[in-house]
Amino acid sequence: MIPTSQKVPRKVVVVGAGPVGCLAALSFAKEGWEVELYEARPDLRESLSGNTQARRSVNLAISSRAIVAMASVDPALATRVLEDGVPLRARMIHDVRGGSESQAYDPHGQCINSIDRGLLNLKLLEEVLSSPGVRVFFLHKLLKSNFDTKLLTFAKDDEPNVDVYFDLCIGADGSYSAVRRDMMRFAKMNYEQEYITHEYVELRMPARTRTDGSPSYRLDPNHLHIWPRHSFMLIALPNKDYTFTCTLFAPAATLASLRTREETLAWFSTHFPDAVAHIGEQNLLDDFEANPKGSLICIKTHPYHYKDSVILLGDASHSMVPFYGQGLNCGLEDVRVLRNVLRNDKVDPLVERSGAYDATLELALRQYSTIRHDDLIAICDMAMDNYVEMRHSVTTPTYRILKAIDHFISSWTRPVPLSTLTAILSRVPFPRANPGGWLSLYTMVTFRPDIPYALARRRAQRQSGVLKILGLSGVGLIAAGLVYSAKVVRAHRRFQGSL
Amino acid sequence: MIPTSQKVPRKVVVVGAGPVGCLAALSFAKEGWEVELYEARPDLRESLSGNTQARRSVNLAISSRAIVAMASVDPALATRVLEDGVPLRARMIHDVRGGSESQAYDPHGQCINSIDRGLLNLKLLEEVLSSPGVRVFFLHKLLKSNFDTKLLTFAKDDEPNVDVYFDLCIGADGSYSAVRRDMMRFAKMNYEQEYITHEYVELRMPARTRTDGSPSYRLDPNHLHIWPRHSFMLIALPNKDYTFTCTLFAPAATLASLRTREETLAWFSTHFPDAVAHIGEQNLLDDFEANPKGSLICIKTHPYHYKDSVILLGDASHSMVPFYGQGLNCGLEDVRVLRNVLRNDKVDPLVERSGAYDATLELALRQYSTIRHDDLIAICDMAMDNYVEMRHSVTTPTYRILKAIDHFISSWTRPVPLSTLTAILSRVPFPRANPGGWLSLYTMVTFRPDIPYALARRRAQRQSGVLKILGLSGVGLIAAGLVYSAKVVRAHRRFQGSL
Repeated sequence: MIPTSQKVPRKVVVVGAGPVGCLAALSFAKEGWEVELYEARPDLRESLSGNTQARRSVNLAISSRAIVAMASVDPALATRVLEDGVPLRARMIHDVRGGSESQAYDPHGQCINSIDRGLLNLKLLEEVLSSPGVRVFFLHKLLKSNFDTKLLTFAKDDEPNVDVYFDLCIGADGSYSAVRRDMMRFAKMNYEQEYITHEYVELRMPARTRTDGSPSYRLDPNHLHIWPRHSFMLIALPNKDYTFTCTLFAPAATLASLRTREETLAWFSTHFPDAVAHIGEQNLLDDFEANPKGSLICIKTHPYHYKDSVILLGDASHSMVPFYGQGLNCGLEDVRVLRNVLRNDKVDPLVERSGAYDATLELALRQYSTIRHDDLIAICDMAMDNYVEMRHSVTTPTYRILKAIDHFISSWTRPVPLSTLTAILSRVPFPRANPGGWLSLYTMVTFRPDIPYALARRRAQRQSGVLKILGLSGVGLIAAGLVYSAKVVRAHRRFQGSL
Repeated sequence: MIPTSQKVPRKVVVVGAGPVGCLAALSFAKEGWEVELYEARPDLRESLSGNTQARRSVNLAISSRAIVAMASVDPALATRVLEDGVPLRARMIHDVRGGSESQAYDPHGQCINSIDRGLLNLKLLEEVLSSPGVRVFFLHKLLKSNFDTKLLTFAKDDEPNVDVYFDLCIGADGSYSAVRRDMMRFAKMNYEQEYITHEYVELRMPARTRTDGSPSYRLDPNHLHIWPRHSFMLIALPNKDYTFTCTLFAPAATLASLRTREETLAWFSTHFPDAVAHIGEQNLLDDFEANPKGSLICIKTHPYHYKDSVILLGDASHSMVPFYGQGLNCGLEDVRVLRNVLRNDKVDPLVERSGAYDATLELALRQYSTIRHDDLIAICDMAMDNYVEMRHSVTTPTYRILKAIDHFISSWTRPVPLSTLTAILSRVPFPRANPGGWLSLYTMVTFRPDIPYALARRRAQRQSGVLKILGLSGVGLIAAGLVYSAKVVRAHRRFQGSL
């Protein structure tokens, strides 16, 4: 055994300073690794300063998985990060006649948090920058990687390329990951990318100005607003500045068919008359013209690691469509799961010689690839399924009846406080025991990070079977009751007739 | 209308001088395009010259789709290319006790052709080199592409990069296509790559030397030999030089478990005692040690084109596992289908100004992407399914009974001569009418290029339903017969007893 004093910290190089990369950097620094964080874009502090009004807002729905992941790195982190968030406790379903209906997310009133992606990223980056164990490099674009010799080469504008050696590389550089691109030359990786035929476009709903000149929200700020229209939908999430970020999701062909301002306005006015009134016609048309039509992609990979050299986290390894609001929750959870796997497998943050092959580390990374895969596939698929739920199912009577029964039964199972969840999940990737009770799928995915995604899905499938039987029994009982009373009435009439 | 004399030929740049790239170059040259063919590797004529014994042999099974595709470019081409092939009319199934059974591919005796990939490639390349309309460049590696400005940049050792403008780029550069890599930056492409958990390793079975010193085959040369062992298998295809190329397909874990020469020999002797005797122990162990373990990958993409700029053919767009022997047949068919689509859509090989955007060309490429997709997915999936058939199903009694009935019914449908098929398929991608009769799936895939892969699959699924009913009825009739005769016997005995 080599005395600790002669050992050096392992060096982890995190590529990508988005929220997942930042949390990974913080987590490894806490564990005693030497951390370097590389980002291709400029310093977010510079790009976010200045006119925030002109900046496009992308809203995230932060829920328990993200909160527990942050809390497991630093107990107060989630609170600091979420101070600019707006809590959402329900969906508000808007019909085409202007009517609306609130559908609570959880029978016990648990909330998700709407927060601007840029703000959340900035907060996490500031945490990293103030963390003594991390060095951050902006404007470093990954050019090529050698995951056998553990060498990354970065390009820097007008400067010579930079070679960086590492013990472990973390690819947290998003859907179009350069780390993944290079890793596929080394690892036998299964990879799948699928564009769905729908696209999205963002529109901004301005604040309302009160008579006293102060701003207010145009819609209830504690709801995620949905205008479901079967094959397409509009949603709106609140910002702290009293605006809403609206997003239209629709088939690419539909969006392409709106060629003139007249066509666009007529189409919006037909399907979303109330939303048009709130957004304002001019504003809507300007945004629709100016903002790009975004693609929706689903990416699945496996394995997530190569030898003891590199691992992909967040969107780089699983890019999902945004309809479950779980993309970033899942990405931050990746960091927590990896941390706990490394701890459980006793990967020493200190080594005798940096750069050497480490079987313990490879084993831990392989374990991550194994335990995490089913969960990542499950949430990618559930996110896809939820698009149909949001734009169509929520409007159907069957869905609403089953949902009501589901919520009623769920209300018997008490929620677990976040502090308890954090305490459990700071030590293990997931508890082995299957937590009991009846929980709706949404609750399991959103508020119960102790239940892995794949397990949540399997439980919900079982529950759904039970619900259908209950629903059918209910319908059967009602039908039987109707038949019986009809018989009684007929018998009574016959009896009267025979008098 | 611009007079033809003022027009210039369009320029097609084919990337990859494998068999598909060569046939594409020949086809476009015939149609009057200006053709340039770029290949990253050295001139095949140089690399194939010299010691062909030392060179690894990869055998292809060339069947009607490839023959018709070549014939539609040049009627005599297929004959010239296939003169070094060995016709195979059946599978020979070898059991572990040394017994064997021949299973004909087709009730009418139609054959597939075993040919060395290098030789076939060389023949096609020589055709290209002697074709006046084509310029060929070796050792040009695609560095980057711009499919909006229609510019490719190639790297050439120790020389400045070469910029090449084009009207149409054809990516025929195989499973790890550089054209596809670059195209994914421009097109919204769905892409999937999957490594199966099995690997392969090649072994050479030498010729036998007769007492007069002349060489002969160790096994019947007109069979594809299979040693199916449920989870793994050995196959052997004949070469013109009296050798066989043997390929072992097995789970990667099984191959990895054979660490010493003793373990390897013991394993082979247990499962393939007769094959070991033919290959020779020393020879087998040397090959097993020296030859790399190959991966098996399945790649699916869609769409295959981007605008009017680029299209992927062959393995670059659909890389399948080798178990249906259709990889190259399908790739060459791609060339024929594309040619006929361009002709049908009246894409003029001459244009007023080279490099300009061409809506007609884009429409034709889009049509190719549309009509070809289901067929490419079908053959990729059938190739995967056929692995189970080859290594396992062929040994089961149910399979053999159903196959016998299938062959018997198929024998009523007369085969269509290759000349007739060529005449039909030289004009249209596929005939619209669904050819009648009952044909086994293997016959449709292998000998009926007028039936698209997806249609072959659907027809076979229907036929399979009928076969199962026939099989069950047969079993039922036999059972009924047995019960009836048992009753008669019992009745007879009772009658005798009562005497």
